[in-house]
Amino acid sequence: MSDVLAQTPEPPYWAVIFTSVRNPHDDDGYGAMADRMAELARQQPGFLGVESCRDAEGVGITVSYWASEEALRGWKANLEHREAQRKGRSGFYSRWFTRVCKVDRAYSFHL
Amino acid sequence: MSDVLAQTPEPPYWAVIFTSVRNPHDDDGYGAMADRMAELARQQPGFLGVESCRDAEGVGITVSYWASEEALRGWKANLEHREAQRKGRSGFYSRWFTRVCKVDRAYSFHL
Repeated sequence: MSDVLAQTPEPPYWAVIFTSVRNPHDDDGYGAMADRMAELARQQPGFLGVESCRDAEGVGITVSYWASEEALRGWKANLEHREAQRKGRSGFYSRWFTRVCKVDRAYSFHL
Repeated sequence: MSDVLAQTPEPPYWAVIFTSVRNPHDDDGYGAMADRMAELARQQPGFLGVESCRDAEGVGITVSYWASEEALRGWKANLEHREAQRKGRSGFYSRWFTRVCKVDRAYSFHL
């Protein structure tokens, strides 16, 4: 459980909140695509971390954290990521929302 | 599935990203507390919506959306919410992170 919560630095930094509902009729290659996107994001300059979960009803939330607006632009422009976004629009999800945010303050706790 | 993604207005607005890992040894009253907090948040002035999921491994992400910093302060000051936060610190979660963010831009899609 050591890396399921992102160990981000002191704010400010950026967060991309991607919330989605999976389309139950299109499962072909979804898991592999999601894993590949996580791997690609980790290699991207300015990547700070990612947190993700999906429940049994198909609701998923993935939050990725980025050091700067430049880092956000780099990830948005990544060609393989753009192709995954295209696939997301054509079947993997029935609905999604992407919100780009600036993290202003943060608090954490661990037992 | 009509309300699992929040129908937020055009940015700017605020998001509180709460990511957590459940403590498997303390389940007493957790579900009721979580439901009550969602109900309370909905009654709070400036509440715009909430998105939440928890997976089988106990990783949870809840994002609530708020119209203004004033709305954020109101929710933070809610006494019943403060009591739930205290319980969160004393057992429900083994770890958590709260990040307060300003949403700068948003994109959405539905089939």
